[in-house]
Amino acid sequence: MNKDNCSTIELLKNEIDEWCRIYFVNKGSYDSILFKAMDYSLNAGGKRIRPMLLLLGYMLYKKDYRTIIDAAGALEMIQTYSLIHDDLPCMDNDDLRRGKPTNHKVYGEALALLAGDGLLNEAMNILFNLSSKIGPDCVKAAAIISNASGPSGMIGGQTVDILAENKTIDIEELTYMHKKKTGALIKASIVAGSILGGASEEDLNILGLYGESLGLAFQIKDDILDVTGESSKLGKNTKTDESNNKTTFVSVYGIDECKEMCEKLSHKCIEYLGMIKRDTSILKDLTVKLLNRVS
Amino acid sequence: MNKDNCSTIELLKNEIDEWCRIYFVNKGSYDSILFKAMDYSLNAGGKRIRPMLLLLGYMLYKKDYRTIIDAAGALEMIQTYSLIHDDLPCMDNDDLRRGKPTNHKVYGEALALLAGDGLLNEAMNILFNLSSKIGPDCVKAAAIISNASGPSGMIGGQTVDILAENKTIDIEELTYMHKKKTGALIKASIVAGSILGGASEEDLNILGLYGESLGLAFQIKDDILDVTGESSKLGKNTKTDESNNKTTFVSVYGIDECKEMCEKLSHKCIEYLGMIKRDTSILKDLTVKLLNRVS
Repeated sequence: MNKDNCSTIELLKNEIDEWCRIYFVNKGSYDSILFKAMDYSLNAGGKRIRPMLLLLGYMLYKKDYRTIIDAAGALEMIQTYSLIHDDLPCMDNDDLRRGKPTNHKVYGEALALLAGDGLLNEAMNILFNLSSKIGPDCVKAAAIISNASGPSGMIGGQTVDILAENKTIDIEELTYMHKKKTGALIKASIVAGSILGGASEEDLNILGLYGESLGLAFQIKDDILDVTGESSKLGKNTKTDESNNKTTFVSVYGIDECKEMCEKLSHKCIEYLGMIKRDTSILKDLTVKLLNRVS
Repeated sequence: MNKDNCSTIELLKNEIDEWCRIYFVNKGSYDSILFKAMDYSLNAGGKRIRPMLLLLGYMLYKKDYRTIIDAAGALEMIQTYSLIHDDLPCMDNDDLRRGKPTNHKVYGEALALLAGDGLLNEAMNILFNLSSKIGPDCVKAAAIISNASGPSGMIGGQTVDILAENKTIDIEELTYMHKKKTGALIKASIVAGSILGGASEEDLNILGLYGESLGLAFQIKDDILDVTGESSKLGKNTKTDESNNKTTFVSVYGIDECKEMCEKLSHKCIEYLGMIKRDTSILKDLTVKLLNRVS
């Protein structure tokens, strides 16, 4: 990876981490524990992939990424809320996330539920406030993010995931599920960032296709790591798909074919980026990094 | 109550009911049960108070309320999501709501959780889409609604409510809780509607005060009905506050003083409305109707 690109990626991640670190500090009154619970999961050490994609999408067109860093933070809040709710006992019942006890293990189920609700809602507050400042382009970008996280996106995908436990689903349903559960918000991140940057319709279409391929590759990689990865590196329990009797890309195609699919999608991503007449080298490096990850 | 006002209120409620009735019909694919679960609670027969307040706030200034009826529907979705999550076993664990089995009793906990998430998120989708159409006034109104439902509003209030179970809280904390839990969204409804209608800053301030008094009166009435009301008329279990050892206005002040407080706040509401140089007679009639309700 190009050294400059590497340090830009590092820099952006640090900026997002810092944004998250201070956001909920000293908030609330009688309800301050709600803010502590939101803060706990927001700062449990995520990879910040979605906010990074948003910022890098924006930076294809404009330099002043701090203007829209709130939108990046909002994306991370949405991602974090979905993890808190997914981990609840009535859902996946997970104890470990990002190497730490899950939210309900620390704060109890009621507060974890409310912390999830709060993060989703606060993300929307941020997007409305930024829309007030920036105007129509931000409203458009926010609508895309909100739609991707909603019932026709992530929540729909999560529904299929829950329904699919302990039964076999076909590849069409599996693809539908992942397109919504993981793919929609990843695609929305890069597209929303580019809209905020002022991308042309043509570029938006190409970046949308890039986002779709990346989202699918990312999920296949996730399924692979659930089988081959180490719990200590991943920061969550592994082989959960198998023990939950879940259909995954690995259970359908096997490890080797999945690795090949991931490789092919990775090339496709790079190809799409090559069609954009901007400096896409950082995005290319991030793509390779994400799909070669071991955790 | 004025007969014309009565039929306007009736008409608006029917329009909101119809909007809710068709919203989720035939939506979804593998995840269609998510849409059914959202539809179930959205159409379980609410009073539609918040959407009514939004429409009536708008109609103080403009007639074509259908232009913004989506915002009214979004408010009802937010209210409905909060009820679904409040009823979950890890929260109030209620079986009955609006005279029907609660969402998780019908669809199970996982789907009820997702249906709640979905309604909150869909409400935001609607508000972003309407903002795209209408512009800055709608962004401002939407930000107020979103802020009122979020961690600094309804979710914060709900947190205090959960923490206050099985312990006595003082009147300051009780007021803080209700101002956020019930008051914030009621106030936001009337204020957002008036913003959409193009109200002056002066009117917005007065209508904000009206909304605050109405919200508080509404909650005191709710506490009274939990003691004196009939479960069959209310469509939910009564005396739940007592059995959950909750501090309420009634447990602090007693029934008679609460009735007097409610009466006084009701007069205050009418006074505020009298300060607006518009035809506020329908809002006055709705206020009286709400605070004299038996269910």
